[in-house]
Amino acid sequence: MTKSLTSLSLSTLAVSCALSFGVANAEEPISIIEPAKITEPEKVELGKMLFFEPRLSMSGFISCNSCHNLSLGGVDALPTSIGHEWQQGPINSPTVLNADFMLAQFWDGRAKDLKEQAAGPIANPKEMGYTHDLAVDTIRSMPAYVARFEKIYGSEEVNIDRITDAIATFEKTLVTPHSDFDKYLQGDKNAISADAKAGYQVFKDQGCTACHNGPAVGGTMYMKMGLVKPFHTDNPSEGRKAVTGLEADKFVFKVPTLRNIELTYPYFHDGSVWTLEEAVNTMADIQLGQALTEQETKQMVEFLKTLTGEQPQITLPILPPSNANTPRPVPFK
Amino acid sequence: MTKSLTSLSLSTLAVSCALSFGVANAEEPISIIEPAKITEPEKVELGKMLFFEPRLSMSGFISCNSCHNLSLGGVDALPTSIGHEWQQGPINSPTVLNADFMLAQFWDGRAKDLKEQAAGPIANPKEMGYTHDLAVDTIRSMPAYVARFEKIYGSEEVNIDRITDAIATFEKTLVTPHSDFDKYLQGDKNAISADAKAGYQVFKDQGCTACHNGPAVGGTMYMKMGLVKPFHTDNPSEGRKAVTGLEADKFVFKVPTLRNIELTYPYFHDGSVWTLEEAVNTMADIQLGQALTEQETKQMVEFLKTLTGEQPQITLPILPPSNANTPRPVPFK
Repeated sequence: MTKSLTSLSLSTLAVSCALSFGVANAEEPISIIEPAKITEPEKVELGKMLFFEPRLSMSGFISCNSCHNLSLGGVDALPTSIGHEWQQGPINSPTVLNADFMLAQFWDGRAKDLKEQAAGPIANPKEMGYTHDLAVDTIRSMPAYVARFEKIYGSEEVNIDRITDAIATFEKTLVTPHSDFDKYLQGDKNAISADAKAGYQVFKDQGCTACHNGPAVGGTMYMKMGLVKPFHTDNPSEGRKAVTGLEADKFVFKVPTLRNIELTYPYFHDGSVWTLEEAVNTMADIQLGQALTEQETKQMVEFLKTLTGEQPQITLPILPPSNANTPRPVPFK
Repeated sequence: MTKSLTSLSLSTLAVSCALSFGVANAEEPISIIEPAKITEPEKVELGKMLFFEPRLSMSGFISCNSCHNLSLGGVDALPTSIGHEWQQGPINSPTVLNADFMLAQFWDGRAKDLKEQAAGPIANPKEMGYTHDLAVDTIRSMPAYVARFEKIYGSEEVNIDRITDAIATFEKTLVTPHSDFDKYLQGDKNAISADAKAGYQVFKDQGCTACHNGPAVGGTMYMKMGLVKPFHTDNPSEGRKAVTGLEADKFVFKVPTLRNIELTYPYFHDGSVWTLEEAVNTMADIQLGQALTEQETKQMVEFLKTLTGEQPQITLPILPPSNANTPRPVPFK
């Protein structure tokens, strides 16, 4: 009887909480995502061109969009990425969607912002395999690009700082507003199902929101992967330890966003888990020491699917042709 | 004096020819490209999704757009393509733009149309490295795709025939109308420069139009590469011989389109030539036994650049997420 009464009380509580959403948004651990405000459209357009520019890679084949595919939720949907000469990347490609809400970039937070991040893969021998000098020479060789740099930055100079600034400016527009969950938070009580509402309650009750909060439902802090039980993986990444050198930071990673999580499988920094059900249960187990009921898992997954927002509408850029001054790609040795 | 007089006469002839353009279109070896008439928009949209679908490859990484990049004139701008596990393709990737004007598909014409072509790379172990069965299983696993097939084809069945039919229907829309040269043909005498006009005259006078004619300025016939002098290449492709088995078809290839040729470098079936100047001179030499003057080459290149048309405006498709029934990609062994 006591158990039944408790269940009933919890249910009542859940309902009363649910009724208060949208009114008292400030009390919610998740905040809505606003549509992008574009103040520099020409820079955004240039950044989009560079985001889709395979000639920023040694092979002429790999662009930012290769591993952050905007048709696929801003990821490659692979456990770890394919890089230059089909090298296997060390870690799961994080989504570029809503990435500007993150406190830092990369799983280990080694880049302070999107601009710093964008410089990394271009020159990473395992990713795009190019050099910043060659990337600059490539873009500088094309008059159509130079004219855009001049118009946007006030001089014809093309450098890696400007290239990554433009890419980051484009990436800042890659937000996903108007998810069903945001509509629900804004007062549309029918925007999500009863199961999703219950799942959100489980999400909060279990303490998931301790880490997964803010507009991106994540990305506001670092946390150890395997907080109460170890996470078993073949992936050698040690997370923040690689940045800070501290043993205490071993296996500490940036908390990933749960926005569009239905699209950004496979999950975790090693990309080892393919279903939301397994991801939810694993997180409950190793981070919180909780075992969810089958129903709770199902409800949580329903909730998570409501976090899929409007995907950015991208008109594919038309890139200017190479010419005799453009460094030629080296796809094969 | 005789020489001067001849030059003058030729110039006069060129001018009188130029003045007749646009009026007597029927007499021109090149016809204009009309904008695509889209009669099946839902099928075009499905075909676009499948064209950008990397899950039609074993790795989950390579889509049609990887080697026929619509940001880059419908090619990969590499001598030969990068395929599954970074295998080197055997031949230069032909543009998908205006490809429906071709008498057949692939350099050797082994596919009779775009639909038949589309099936090739999916199952080619050196390209997308998948199988048709797995491709069908992949698409069939996603309810959002199945709903589109049902609406378009009248039943839920997903098969390779329907997949390639949709891709081909999308590809038929990839035409490039409104080039400066087409405007010129339609009577706008200022649409192209005097050099380009002179280049067109050289193009006709030298006999280039014997092979490069029709709306795509090519693609209407097969021709031996190295008609009057041998073409030296390391590329082992033997062209039509591989299809017909005839020794006479050795090194006979489909005449490529010259539409958007400024964008579709590097040139020839082996992708060995990077500049239009060299391509023009090589063609004049080995196909026609002619040596062009520096000015003629320059003018011809100016003319060829006027064949760049309006590139298709593509809104990047948003692809449905995989689920537990979707075959998982195998990017690495």
